[in-house]
Amino acid sequence: MDDKNILLMIPGPVPVHPRIYLAMSRPIYGHRTKEFRELLEESIEMLKKICRTQNDMFIFSGSGTSAMDSAIANLVSKGDEVLNIMGGKFAERWGEITQTYGGKSIPVNVEWGTAVNPDDVIASLEANPNIKIITFTHNETSTGVLHPAEEIGKIAKEYDKLLLVDGITSVGGDYCETDKWGFDILVTGSQKCLGLPPGLGMIAVSQRAWEVIERRTDTPSYYLNLKKYKESSKKFDPPFTPALPLFYAAKEAFQLIVDEGYENRVKRHRLCAKATQEGMKQIGFELFANEKYASNTVSAVKYMDGLDDAAFRKTMLRHKVLIAGGQGKIKGKVFRVAHMNLCSEREVLLTLALIELTLKELGFDVKLGAGVAAAQKIF
Amino acid sequence: MDDKNILLMIPGPVPVHPRIYLAMSRPIYGHRTKEFRELLEESIEMLKKICRTQNDMFIFSGSGTSAMDSAIANLVSKGDEVLNIMGGKFAERWGEITQTYGGKSIPVNVEWGTAVNPDDVIASLEANPNIKIITFTHNETSTGVLHPAEEIGKIAKEYDKLLLVDGITSVGGDYCETDKWGFDILVTGSQKCLGLPPGLGMIAVSQRAWEVIERRTDTPSYYLNLKKYKESSKKFDPPFTPALPLFYAAKEAFQLIVDEGYENRVKRHRLCAKATQEGMKQIGFELFANEKYASNTVSAVKYMDGLDDAAFRKTMLRHKVLIAGGQGKIKGKVFRVAHMNLCSEREVLLTLALIELTLKELGFDVKLGAGVAAAQKIF
Repeated sequence: MDDKNILLMIPGPVPVHPRIYLAMSRPIYGHRTKEFRELLEESIEMLKKICRTQNDMFIFSGSGTSAMDSAIANLVSKGDEVLNIMGGKFAERWGEITQTYGGKSIPVNVEWGTAVNPDDVIASLEANPNIKIITFTHNETSTGVLHPAEEIGKIAKEYDKLLLVDGITSVGGDYCETDKWGFDILVTGSQKCLGLPPGLGMIAVSQRAWEVIERRTDTPSYYLNLKKYKESSKKFDPPFTPALPLFYAAKEAFQLIVDEGYENRVKRHRLCAKATQEGMKQIGFELFANEKYASNTVSAVKYMDGLDDAAFRKTMLRHKVLIAGGQGKIKGKVFRVAHMNLCSEREVLLTLALIELTLKELGFDVKLGAGVAAAQKIF
Repeated sequence: MDDKNILLMIPGPVPVHPRIYLAMSRPIYGHRTKEFRELLEESIEMLKKICRTQNDMFIFSGSGTSAMDSAIANLVSKGDEVLNIMGGKFAERWGEITQTYGGKSIPVNVEWGTAVNPDDVIASLEANPNIKIITFTHNETSTGVLHPAEEIGKIAKEYDKLLLVDGITSVGGDYCETDKWGFDILVTGSQKCLGLPPGLGMIAVSQRAWEVIERRTDTPSYYLNLKKYKESSKKFDPPFTPALPLFYAAKEAFQLIVDEGYENRVKRHRLCAKATQEGMKQIGFELFANEKYASNTVSAVKYMDGLDDAAFRKTMLRHKVLIAGGQGKIKGKVFRVAHMNLCSEREVLLTLALIELTLKELGFDVKLGAGVAAAQKIF
């Protein structure tokens, strides 16, 4: 199997623009230099635009999880009550990290595949007045659900709680209004809708969050300590040696995103999502996510009776397209197709066509071309 | 200034072999795949050879400091007494991280530029019987000193203390016998003598260290939690999305190192160090490090009277060679020239020749060619 010539339709890592590969492989230069500081300053400025924020932003050499870890390590003190909005593998990760740092996790349970009901959040806040922080997963990669961020932002404001948001698979692909919706922390990662290789985590920190962070004297983190990043960011001098090739890549990727424009980019992602989802339904699949809250960056699709996860994905791979299986408790029950970053009618139509072909090869009675046609109509 | 055509003679990042750039920029593929697991397994196997250990090894997507942070976060509980062997900026970092996690730092002070006296370590261990852990910087990048690791290893063993070693600028360039010298933790980083771009931190964990790590239920780290890495490493399935381009690069870099051979590689680094240091002396410089303990991977050199740090390094840069200034309390007083990774007679002779030229240009009375000749004799 030629793993250098496979179309990635998984929810990260995503295909990377050739311009980014070129930028990434430029000769390494020192990072304690004017050249690097300028690159970092320009990159952060573009990243803030992409994340719709004027808050401080930092880039970690680490995965998206490193940024989630940093958020909790810097904000949650032992015994703090934290409301974790659940509903998927990544939402649960917020809960695990909360407990890692001795926070008391108060979950708001959400059935996987559905969106959180804002009333449940309100009820939990009313029942637990000592809650300080709310964690929220904007777009749940494991279930293909886009949760109602604006509503949650309003509730957090009304109840005066810090709101920590995982925007790892929304930023750069869907609306994600960090400042307008009142996110105190936004975290994201490089290898999703930002179109970079994996290896960078990003974080935006509000003034309200800084007040908590700066009061603390016992932050249990060195590498991901936000105070260190803030201090060194004044001169755009990173506290630790950055993963330079990925920073070279980031500037190029952010430029591509800024050039496309926020509205255009969201529109394209939403169109691809719609086409993918209509195509899937026409083929005979059922979406895993409640349609009203279906994600615009990743579609989770239920397997039809008799369709084996391994056989399906292996056949797709033989056709040189990699799609993702399910995670956690829905492993084997769903597959996931991402429509992120560069994704366009080209990738969507191709994927649907190969899914139809794969089903035929596996002995399913499928009307060839029907899913493709449904998607074509959307485009 | 053309920052894509500068010879890096700084102690990291180092020039990267063209084969590594090629490997790094291959098309991204998924990491939850057989192909990636195989790559990781082969890479870890080579890394263990390079680090002279049969202990478990893991690669973090993060800087060398991320690996130091992980070591302390996973091993030091609140109130634990930790002996921090000092003597440079990176040794002090061990102390800072110790305090971050509530460890009680007991420093063994070492004059910068000299090596630690093993008797001082013994005296501190005798005076503080509750010490559990010793931190040690094998090769101090800020002072150009190679500290006596084998002796410290013997002491740690005799007193039954866990020994945490920063091998960030020794591994891959000098002798670093993790198992034979009894290191419980070895940490290293990608952008020094391993010849990779920055962005990866590596850690080796002994059985004795695991016993402490596994007993703990309150490890204050999620992203750098060693238990998570151990659990997932059974199938070479990383716990979090890895920085793929750097992992592609790592396999190629490790192969280059294994192919050259441990003894050959150390010999080459030692020859380059000797030539650099003899050349510097012949030019009229004094080494900052006590010569008996001068590092084989980085030379710290004292400025002569009247030679200005900024003017010197700026002129060198105009000649397209980047060298490093001093750090911490010796900033402005020394410069540093690394001889790491690909470094050979070519880079050493060139750097000495340009240093001579630079001195001449800055109005110093220097005998042109004398330093170069001293180095040529060594080669």
